[in-house]
Amino acid sequence: MTDTRPPAITLEEFADVTRTGLPMAYRLGLRAEAIGYGTATVRMPFDETLVRPGGTISGPALMSLTDYTMYAALMGALGRVELAVTTNLNINFLRKPAARDVLAECRIIKLGRTLCVLDVTLTSEGDDRPVAHATGTYAIPPKT
Amino acid sequence: MTDTRPPAITLEEFADVTRTGLPMAYRLGLRAEAIGYGTATVRMPFDETLVRPGGTISGPALMSLTDYTMYAALMGALGRVELAVTTNLNINFLRKPAARDVLAECRIIKLGRTLCVLDVTLTSEGDDRPVAHATGTYAIPPKT
Amino acid sequence: MTDTRPPAITLEEFADVTRTGLPMAYRLGLRAEAIGYGTATVRMPFDETLVRPGGTISGPALMSLTDYTMYAALMGALGRVELAVTTNLNINFLRKPAARDVLAECRIIKLGRTLCVLDVTLTSEGDDRPVAHATGTYAIPPKT
Amino acid sequence: MTDTRPPAITLEEFADVTRTGLPMAYRLGLRAEAIGYGTATVRMPFDETLVRPGGTISGPALMSLTDYTMYAALMGALGRVELAVTTNLNINFLRKPAARDVLAECRIIKLGRTLCVLDVTLTSEGDDRPVAHATGTYAIPPKT
Repeated sequence: MTDTRPPAITLEEFADVTRTGLPMAYRLGLRAEAIGYGTATVRMPFDETLVRPGGTISGPALMSLTDYTMYAALMGALGRVELAVTTNLNINFLRKPAARDVLAECRIIKLGRTLCVLDVTLTSEGDDRPVAHATGTYAIPPKT
Repeated sequence: MTDTRPPAITLEEFADVTRTGLPMAYRLGLRAEAIGYGTATVRMPFDETLVRPGGTISGPALMSLTDYTMYAALMGALGRVELAVTTNLNINFLRKPAARDVLAECRIIKLGRTLCVLDVTLTSEGDDRPVAHATGTYAIPPKT
Repeated sequence: MTDTRPPAITLEEFADVTRTGLPMAYRLGLRAEAIGYGTATVRMPFDETLVRPGGTISGPALMSLTDYTMYAALMGALGRVELAVTTNLNINFLRKPAARDVLAECRIIKLGRTLCVLDVTLTSEGDDRPVAHATGTYAIPPKT
Repeated sequence: MTDTRPPAITLEEFADVTRTGLPMAYRLGLRAEAIGYGTATVRMPFDETLVRPGGTISGPALMSLTDYTMYAALMGALGRVELAVTTNLNINFLRKPAARDVLAECRIIKLGRTLCVLDVTLTSEGDDRPVAHATGTYAIPPKT
């Protein structure tokens, strides 16, 4: 879904969501660099503690980045729906990431009333080839 | 796969793998409580920093636990194959976990020569109903 | 979910659902052999037209069997909810199936109000080792 | 993966693969309309026997189309690797398909030496909004 509507959340607001509510993401240093209506780009700064045997970035770090980027893209469409929760995530690990920042690009595939399906591609900075690709579903909290 | 063969790694050795090679898992306090041939049970101690909006444990923490438990079960069958890497992980989040320790139970569904498929069920301590269920595939490094 | 409540549909009723509403399943000869509350066992009779290059049963035939078995298990818990639809299906193909009937066993992992998550294991008749394993989600139609 | 290399199989050859080796796909009338290097577009003609309760096209028919389109895109990159087999397929059903032909577009996300990961989007003819989205992995047979 590419959409020209303005995003429903600013980078500053999403940073605030992170700081106040997402300690794991905050500790990983995850930082949204762009949020559009249903899209987001997030950077995970490289850090030695992310490395696992084989000199590659750990799967859990990449999954954390993936989930966080979906959350950002969803809020880009719906605003501060903090109570949205992941119901399914499927990820394929494709290549050994470099010892560099990882970038995640997310777009909404389908925004329904109660469910949202999203697509995420991860790359190492400076290299277009994906290191991982994921699809996920978020449950959207009912409006109150 | 239930198997009566002895495990190919001890709890102490796996704790050592964690301490020396898996800083994210180590920081989360993940602790294997049982490892059999192709099976593992791991505990994630409850901690306030795991909580996300809605008072639930964050998806990335549950995914980290899931991936780590698969790694333990794989080593239970193959020994210290540190270079084994996740190629696919699919997880369904089923219920809001309680503010309690989470337990993960993993078993190997199929152990092939190059790929291993595993199944993981997560529960909150003291409650049998699953909070998440996952399947994943590890690529097994070639013997050298 | 193992449950001792009686099934909400009989084998005869489910055969009727199939005959009247599921031409693809009917043509494949899929036949529920047991339906419990949230569980089902279905047989796919071997047939030369299911075979694909390599002498193995085609993935789409196995996926059809998987989806149909989930539908049966769901109706075992909820009765004739014909309008329930699959929202996600994830399948791992594990072994080359033999040129024999395939059996699918399904159980509900989580039955919610709007979503149901199920688990399916496929085996070749006479061999316990799984040829495929799947998890899926059905959306449950609202009661009217 | 967009690639300007010529496809490794022609539409005629792939139709021949279908006619001689894939009876289920042949019976569904699946027809590749374009095959590039690692890409494919396939049409599934609408037919009353594809319909399931609710007036929607059955999930198994959409899964058959998905798997077949991945097979076409893989052969677009590698030629007649008939023995390539699906190892994982994950599909999200997004919208009720219309009573019309369904079109599937596939591209390779990652072509490795032994595994290939692909992405498929399904739409109803004449409507850009996806009815389903899938990712899958094929195992590539060793060269002999």
